[in-house]
This record gives sequence, structure tokens and C-alpha cells, in this order.
Amino acid sequence: MSKQKIKIGLLGAGTIGGSVIKFLHENQAVISQRTNADIEIKKILVLPREIPALQEKNLPATDSYDEILNDPEIKIVVELMGGINPAKDFILKAMNHGKNVVTANKDVVAQFGGELFETAEKNQVDFLFEASVGGAIPIIMPLKRSLTANKITEILGIVNGTTNYMLTKMTADGVDYETVLKEAQSKGYAERNPAADVEGKDAARKIAILASIAFNSRVTFENVSVEGITKITPQDISHAEKLGYVVKLLAIGKDSELGIDVRVHPVLLEKNHPLASVNGVLNAIFVKGAPIGEAMFYGPGAGEPTASAVISDIIEIARGIQLNSVGRFGCTCYENKKFCPVEETVSSYYMRLLVDDKPGVLGRIATTFGDAGVSLKSVMQSECAPEDHAEIIVVTHEVKHKNILQAQDALKNLDVVDEILSIIRVE
Amino acid sequence: MSKQKIKIGLLGAGTIGGSVIKFLHENQAVISQRTNADIEIKKILVLPREIPALQEKNLPATDSYDEILNDPEIKIVVELMGGINPAKDFILKAMNHGKNVVTANKDVVAQFGGELFETAEKNQVDFLFEASVGGAIPIIMPLKRSLTANKITEILGIVNGTTNYMLTKMTADGVDYETVLKEAQSKGYAERNPAADVEGKDAARKIAILASIAFNSRVTFENVSVEGITKITPQDISHAEKLGYVVKLLAIGKDSELGIDVRVHPVLLEKNHPLASVNGVLNAIFVKGAPIGEAMFYGPGAGEPTASAVISDIIEIARGIQLNSVGRFGCTCYENKKFCPVEETVSSYYMRLLVDDKPGVLGRIATTFGDAGVSLKSVMQSECAPEDHAEIIVVTHEVKHKNILQAQDALKNLDVVDEILSIIRVE
Repeated sequence: MSKQKIKIGLLGAGTIGGSVIKFLHENQAVISQRTNADIEIKKILVLPREIPALQEKNLPATDSYDEILNDPEIKIVVELMGGINPAKDFILKAMNHGKNVVTANKDVVAQFGGELFETAEKNQVDFLFEASVGGAIPIIMPLKRSLTANKITEILGIVNGTTNYMLTKMTADGVDYETVLKEAQSKGYAERNPAADVEGKDAARKIAILASIAFNSRVTFENVSVEGITKITPQDISHAEKLGYVVKLLAIGKDSELGIDVRVHPVLLEKNHPLASVNGVLNAIFVKGAPIGEAMFYGPGAGEPTASAVISDIIEIARGIQLNSVGRFGCTCYENKKFCPVEETVSSYYMRLLVDDKPGVLGRIATTFGDAGVSLKSVMQSECAPEDHAEIIVVTHEVKHKNILQAQDALKNLDVVDEILSIIRVE
Repeated sequence: MSKQKIKIGLLGAGTIGGSVIKFLHENQAVISQRTNADIEIKKILVLPREIPALQEKNLPATDSYDEILNDPEIKIVVELMGGINPAKDFILKAMNHGKNVVTANKDVVAQFGGELFETAEKNQVDFLFEASVGGAIPIIMPLKRSLTANKITEILGIVNGTTNYMLTKMTADGVDYETVLKEAQSKGYAERNPAADVEGKDAARKIAILASIAFNSRVTFENVSVEGITKITPQDISHAEKLGYVVKLLAIGKDSELGIDVRVHPVLLEKNHPLASVNGVLNAIFVKGAPIGEAMFYGPGAGEPTASAVISDIIEIARGIQLNSVGRFGCTCYENKKFCPVEETVSSYYMRLLVDDKPGVLGRIATTFGDAGVSLKSVMQSECAPEDHAEIIVVTHEVKHKNILQAQDALKNLDVVDEILSIIRVE
């Protein structure tokens, strides 16, 4: 094979875009030898005010998307702008102009994956998005290719670096949510408006993408039941610790005869679970299936390293162009599985209650749980509680979510229960 | 695309072979939908005495390799016999008959990779071996494809389940090497002749394969400096623990301006390193490079789950057959890098010395290290030592291996040093 020149158009030159530019240059020799292709950035779409800075570095900046669309030499459009608008529109236009697309955009893929894949298939182009989940971690390609032989039943991810950093800090230093959020913001790990991260929406988009691939059935953001970390307290983290758990924000996808169950929420995770030692801004995705059993993919979930995933997608398409095989393996959602209602999902639960400190209280609480069909694995009394009160920590056996809701209602109506301070699933 | 029938010939029906048969059947529906191909086992080569058992299960057993070689319908030969002979010969013959080959055979790949790739290229067939390293863990394909954009500088692996199980047990229970070996043998985790595992040879073959791919330069078993776990004592593990380390048998590959450095030996690994919590028979491979930074791949390193890797290779080739693109991306060792001599490699070292318990000894030891160009990071005295003796635990700063050898010689000649009990690298 003679060495082929593959020309690409880049949309956006922020953190990831800048890193793609940098490493396509720095690692040019190894990439060229490994792929037998030279990858050249022909145009970079940026805002008018960003053009001078790029031109100073001799980079081919433009503020006209049409220049990229109408350039027949550009075979791959790499969308790194983020957000829905105008990214989605730009991706569709690129495909309709016969161009392959690489994106790092979880929002667009999680919400409009079906439409985007349809457009890619119609135009016989590739649509790759390795960087949209887990940043630099190879996970989309391993799921689609290396694990093809497996029936995957479960996928668990720590896929949001901001919240994982915050929970790690809260665990290490015993500080509260507000304090750690401020620190994360000052370090640039959390945005000024942290809602998408701390409320679990970012993780929800990512698990929608992963679950769609793992279970071969379309899961969108709307199908994910979401709860963030805003209610997690140092007290819960410390109790969890004593019980042998760490608190993590997990993105969870399960596929069983009950249907697909996709959720994002804080969990108490056993300390010896492989995900339990994934700390700070790092991400990891844990997969369960047969025959593989259990596997985990671990690495940096954001920032400059993400260029590794973006460039690997570009190279995949470059190989497809060389082999004349682009657009041949598209969407893998060939099934239309039902979803499992949240009330039917099964977990153990951790619950912290503020109760009156008087004889007989524990018995009444245990009876209330029992009446709701919830059997208890452990009950312990915490040392710290306001005067005349006691704090009770309960861990249940596995029960349906609806039984927990029933127990919760009944507990609220007990005169000896002052407040249900927290309910967290145990995974 | 119409659904294509891809027929394969299986060599061997042991643990992995049996599992491949089982899961090609059990997961037939998902595999067929995901790949748009039906994979059919046309012939299984076994020993004459094994034939009746397979025929009872209606499996197409044969004891004649020629039947497979001369069957034009068989496009893929899957070698799962293990060992060099006759596996290597069978693989070469298959390729020379125009058949693609999948193997799980680390011995053959590590020792004869160059020749096998040459034969594959000559015959324009694919040669895949995902299962040869890390069992079920996807690592060969991620290295060759997902990480193509990276300059990889370091690859560290826990790639031998037997020794990792033994070290995990020694750490948890404080038992000695002989005791844990017997237990591992009784559980089937160690073979009756455990040499290949406990002496590090199995891990050496695997790191030779990984380093060849990561550094794009051929590394064979002979290039690997190897030391096993036979000299590791519960004392060393317990001292390591106090110093904040765990003891692991690591397979190490590094690529720097000094050359390629490939070794297998026990190390003291910092407890917060991602590999430190990989316990029991599990495997993991840790990769360092730019832009990815650090990534880790974790999962079962042997047994039935390995079928996941074997079948994924079969499917890769099936896709290649569908796209008429087999044999297009072969050997990636396009460089011929020099090796770094072991004496020039750099590490910190942990050393345990039995010395006379009298004043001035510590000073003389420290001076001896200093004279050999070795500076010390910490020195501590152990509590347990025979009468009139003391046990000294030393951790050095980073030094060249030749300086440690020089220090070791000088220490042996000191009258106050009775014995150098152990030397272990700190990674």
C-alpha cells in the first residue's frame, strides 16, 4: 500500500481540539508508520475572534463551515465544539456532504444517536465517538469489537471526573459538599455552574451511550433515572467507611429479563470492588458478561488525554478509507428492548434515620421495615445525634425499590421518626 | 450485506477450546446479529482418544490435521493446543494453505512472532492472538488500534495469575512460599511443575509480546531479564506493607533514549498504584504514554473467560473476510530498537540485611552504599532478628542497577554484614 494523505476538518480548537492539533504533530512519525497514512488538518473552524491566534501558529483557521463542507479533499470532519447547537447540525451536514464524522460530543450522541446513525448509514459514512465516554479510555471500540462475543449483563461506570474528585476529597478530608465544590471550582475541576456534573446529568448521557452499545438497544438521556451527589454528607461517607464501603457516583446499566435498567445515583460500593479504588478525576468502566466474567477499563476521563481517543477514531476511518470500507458497520441497536420500571429494580439500601432516643424505638422501626417487605441486614446506632435523639443506620437485604418507597412512607408516619436523613443504594 | 457463513477449524478442545465451542453456541444469536455472519465450527482436531467424547456431543471431531488443511471451506484455523510443537508447525501450515489464524499461544508468539508474521504477510492472511496475553482482557487490539495515536513509554503488567494469587495469599495470611504453592496446586491455580509460572517465564513471554506491539520493535523471550517469586518471604511482604508498598510480580517494558528495557521480577509497588489492588488470579495491564497519560485494562487472565478474546479475534477476521480486507494490517514491528543493558536500568531498591548488632554498624553500611554511588531514602531496623544480630531494611533513591551490584559486592565484604537477605526493586 502506498502512503495515503487523509485530510481532515476540525471544528473547535479548545482543550481537546488543541491537544488533537498538538499530538497529530508531535506523534506524526509513529502515526504515519503505524497506519501507512499521513493525516493532515486542512481546516480548523473557530470563532472569528479566535482566528488571529491560530494564524500566528500557522494553523489553517477559518470561520466559515461552508469552506470545510465544500472541500472535496476533506474526508473526515472532527467535531469538538460540544453542546447541541450548532454541533448536531454541523455533524448532519458533514454526513450529508459524504464526510465521515468523529465527535467527542456526549450530549449529541446520547440525545440524537438514532438520527445521527441513520444519517451516517444513508450516506455510507462512518460515525465514531470514542471520546464521548470515558475521555481517553478505550471503551466504545472494545465494547463494539473486543467484547462482541459476550452477552453483557451489567455495565458500571465512574464516568464523571468532577463528582469523583469531590467524593474522593470528601472521603479523604471529611469536608462537606459545599466546601469541596468551592475547591473543585477553584482548581478548574468543576464549572462555575456545576449542575450538569453534580446532578448526574453528564454521567447519565454517558451511560445512555454505553448501555445502547452494550445491550444493542437504543437508550437515550430521557430513559436514565438520575440523582446527583448534592445530598451526600460527610456523615454518610464516614458511616459507609465503617461498614466497609466507599461512596461513589455510579452510572449503572443492567440488562435482565425485567428489561433494561439504567440509572445514575450515589452508591455504597464495597471497598474491594475494582471501582472502589478509582479516585480523583480518573474514570473507569466495569463490564460484566459471559464468557468474560468481569473486566475494567481505567484512565483519564477528560482534558488533553482525550486526544488519544479522538485521533484513534480518525485513524480508524483513515484505515477504512484505505480499505474502501467506510460506512460498513454502523449502528448496533438492532433490538428494541423494554425498560425495567425503577420501582421494580432491586438493590440493598443504606438508610440513616433521626429518631427519638427512647426504649422500644428500634423495635418499632424494624417492624415497620418488615411490614413493608424489607428485611434488614444490619442496624447500628451512630454516636453523634442531638440531645434526646438517636441516629440509626440501617442496611437492608436486596429488595425492590417499591418496597423501599413503601417503608419510607411508613417510617415518615411513625411518631418516633423525626427525619429520614439519607437513603443510598448499596451496589 | 447478506449473512455470510464463516467456517472455522479448531485445534484443541481443552479448557479454552471447550469454552469457545460453548459460547459460539450459547451466544450465537448476539454474535450473528452483531457481525452479520454465522460462525460455524466445521472441524475440531483432537487426539484419537478424545474423539468419542466429542462425537457423543455431536461435535465434528477429527484426528487428522490434513482434513482441516485441505478443506477449502475452512477460512480460519483457531489454534488452542498450546506449547511450541506441533502448534507452531500447524500454524505455519494453515497460513501456507491460505487460512487465517487465531491463537492463544503465548509461547509460539513470543518466540517465533517474526517468522509467523512474515508467513502471514506472504500468504495475505490475518494472524491474531488477543488471548495470548491477559486471557480475556482486551489488550492487543486496544494497543494496536485504540492507542495508535500514542507514543507509549511504559507498559506494566500483572500477567500471571498463579503468582499473583500466591503473592496475594502470602500478603493476606502471612504464610510462606512453600505453603502457598501447595495450596495453589491443590486448588488447580498452580501446575504440578510450577516452574514456568513461579520463575517468571510465563510473564516474560507475555511482556515480550506486549513490548513488541507497544514499542513497534521485536522483543522475544530471550530479550527479557527474568526473576521469579521463589525467594519472596513473608518478612519482605510485611516490611513492604509497613513502608506503604505491596509486593507484586511485574512484567515491565520501558522505552527510552537508553533503549528498550524489558524485565520480569518482583517489585515493591506503592499501595495507591492502580495495579496494587489487582489481587488473586486476576490480571491487569497498565500503559503510560502521550497523550493518554495512564490507562489500565483489568480482567480474568486465564481459563474459560479467555474464549471472549478468542471469539473476538475470529469475529475480526470474519469481518475482514466480509470486507475483503484480510491480511492488510500485519506486523507492527517496523523499527529495530536497541536494548538497554540491565546494568544501566534505573530503579529504587529495597534491601534487607542481617548484620551484627553493635554500635557503628549503621554508619559503616551507609558509608558503603555511599561509596558505591547509592544514596539512601530510608533505613529502618526490623524488630525480629537472631540474638546479637540486627535486621536492617534499606530503601534507596533511584540508582543504576550496576551501582546496586557494586554496593552488594562491597557489603558482602564488610565483616559486620552477615547476609544480604533480599534485594527487590521498587517501582
